[in-house]
Amino acid sequence: MNTTPDYIPITGHTRLTALLGSPVTHSISPLMHNESFRLLGLDYVYLCFDVKEDTLEEAVRGLRQTGIRGFNLTMPNKNKIVQLADRLSLSVQLIGAANTIVNDNGILTAYNTDGYGFMQSVKDAGHEITGKTMTLMGIGGAAAAICAQAALDGVKKIHIFARPTSRFWNRTEDMIKKIHQKTACTVILHENEDLPALKKALEESALLVNATSVGMAPHTGNSIIEDASLLTPHLAVGDIIYNPRETKLLSMARERGCPTFNGMYMLLYQGAEAFKLWTGREMPVDVIKEKYFSE
Amino acid sequence: MNTTPDYIPITGHTRLTALLGSPVTHSISPLMHNESFRLLGLDYVYLCFDVKEDTLEEAVRGLRQTGIRGFNLTMPNKNKIVQLADRLSLSVQLIGAANTIVNDNGILTAYNTDGYGFMQSVKDAGHEITGKTMTLMGIGGAAAAICAQAALDGVKKIHIFARPTSRFWNRTEDMIKKIHQKTACTVILHENEDLPALKKALEESALLVNATSVGMAPHTGNSIIEDASLLTPHLAVGDIIYNPRETKLLSMARERGCPTFNGMYMLLYQGAEAFKLWTGREMPVDVIKEKYFSE
Repeated sequence: MNTTPDYIPITGHTRLTALLGSPVTHSISPLMHNESFRLLGLDYVYLCFDVKEDTLEEAVRGLRQTGIRGFNLTMPNKNKIVQLADRLSLSVQLIGAANTIVNDNGILTAYNTDGYGFMQSVKDAGHEITGKTMTLMGIGGAAAAICAQAALDGVKKIHIFARPTSRFWNRTEDMIKKIHQKTACTVILHENEDLPALKKALEESALLVNATSVGMAPHTGNSIIEDASLLTPHLAVGDIIYNPRETKLLSMARERGCPTFNGMYMLLYQGAEAFKLWTGREMPVDVIKEKYFSE
Repeated sequence: MNTTPDYIPITGHTRLTALLGSPVTHSISPLMHNESFRLLGLDYVYLCFDVKEDTLEEAVRGLRQTGIRGFNLTMPNKNKIVQLADRLSLSVQLIGAANTIVNDNGILTAYNTDGYGFMQSVKDAGHEITGKTMTLMGIGGAAAAICAQAALDGVKKIHIFARPTSRFWNRTEDMIKKIHQKTACTVILHENEDLPALKKALEESALLVNATSVGMAPHTGNSIIEDASLLTPHLAVGDIIYNPRETKLLSMARERGCPTFNGMYMLLYQGAEAFKLWTGREMPVDVIKEKYFSE
C-alpha cells in the first residue's frame, strides 16, 4: 500500500525555502527538494528567486522577516551572502563562500554544503580518502569548498594546481593558511605548468579531482590533464562537471583503467545536506537519484 | 473524466503570492488560493508570513526583490502598506488602506478588494443597490472599504453611524470629502446615539450593513441595532461578521422578515478579486464556496 500523499495542501503553516541566484528558473533544486518534502510529508515548499548581488541584501533582509526556514545560494551570490549572515560555519570561515542559509528565529547561519556534497559523492563512488592524499585542479569556488571540506574530513594532504594569474590565487593562499591553523591537513599550492610536481602529486594521490570548468559543454574537447599517461589505475578520477556526463578527462581516465565519477551526485548531496539542515530529516536520496539524477 | 491534476509540481518557474499579517497561520486564504491555482493549473503558490507593522517595510522591500507576483495584507498591515506602494488604486486613495499588492516588474500597486468583496457578496445575496441608499454601521477599516467601493459602484446615498469618540472619526470626515470630490454619492456621517436619524436612514435604505465588531464571538449576545422594530422587511441586512454565522443582528432581522447575509462571501470575493489581479483569471468560486465556505 502506497501511503505517500499525492500532495501536501499548502496552508498558513507551510514554510518557505528557496534558491537565490541568477539565472535560477531551470535549476533542478526545486524538483529534488519539493519531491522530498512530499515523500516525507514535510510542510515546506522550495521556490526559486532571481536575485543578483546588487539586490541580494534587500532580498535576504526581507526573507528573514517572512520567517523563511532557509535558502540556498547559487551564482553569483555565494560570496556576498557571507557578509549578510549572522553566524558562519567553520567551512564557510575557511572558504569565504556559502551556499546554504538556515534561519533560526531571525538568526541566519551560513553553511557550505558543496564540499560536503563532493565528499559524499566520493564515498558514493566507493572511495575512502580519509588519511590519504588528493590532487585538486582549480581554485574557484567549488575547488575551495572541496579543499576545505576534505581537510576538515581528515584528508591528509591536498595538492592544488592552478594558474598563478588567477584572481583567486591570493585568496587561496589565505585559505590554505587558515586550513593549516584549523586542521591537520597539509595543502600545497602549485602552478599548473609545473608538470613534474603534477606527476609527483598524482603518483602519491588516491584521488584526482577536476574542479575547473575545463571540459564543460560546449568545450567538451578540452581536458585539464593533457597527458593521459599521468593517469594510472591506482588513481580514482572525479570531475565536478556533469554536462557532459563524461568529460574528456573522465573518458581519458576510463580508458587508462581509472575508476571515475562525475559531478551529478555532488549536486544531489549538497542539496541533501541543506535539506537536513532545514528539516532535520534525511533526504530520500535513492528515490531522488532515480527520479532526477539518472540518464 | 477528471482532468484536474492532483498537484502542480513546484519548479523554478513557480511564482509566489502571500499573505502578510499577524497572526496569519490559521487564515483560510492559502486554502482558497492554492486550491484555485491547482484547479486552473496555474503555477503559483500562496504562503502566509507572520509580519507586523515594524517589520513590514523590510519584508516588502525584500519580497519585491524576489519577484513575488503579489500579496495580501491583513491586520495590522493594511494602513502602513499604503506608504510602501508605488501606485495606489482609486479606492485605496479614498480609503487610505489596502489589502492587495500587485508586483509588476518591481512596481507595487496597491488595491483594496475588501469593498469589492462586500459589494459582490451583496449581489450574490440577490440584492441590487446601485442608485439606492444604504446605512452603514461603523467607521473602521472594513467600513471605509465598503463605503468607498459602494460610492464608486454607484450607490446614491450612504448614511454612516459611528461613535464620535472613535479614533477614526476625523479620518472618516476626510474620506467623505474625497468621496464627494470623486463620485456622485452623498455620504452623511451620524452619531450612533442619534436614534431619530437612524430610524429615518433605515426607512430610506435598501440595505443595512454592520461593519463593526459588535456581535462577534465571544460577544454573541450584542447587536449594533438594539431596537428590532427599526428593522422592516423592505430592508436587506448584512453583517461582515462570520463568526458566528448568524449574529444577533442577523437573527433579529430574520425574525422581522428581512433577508440577511453574513461576511463569509465578502471574504471569498475579496480573495477572488485579488486572485484575478495576480493571475488574470477568474477564481472558480462555486467550487471554492462548496469546499471552504459551506457550513
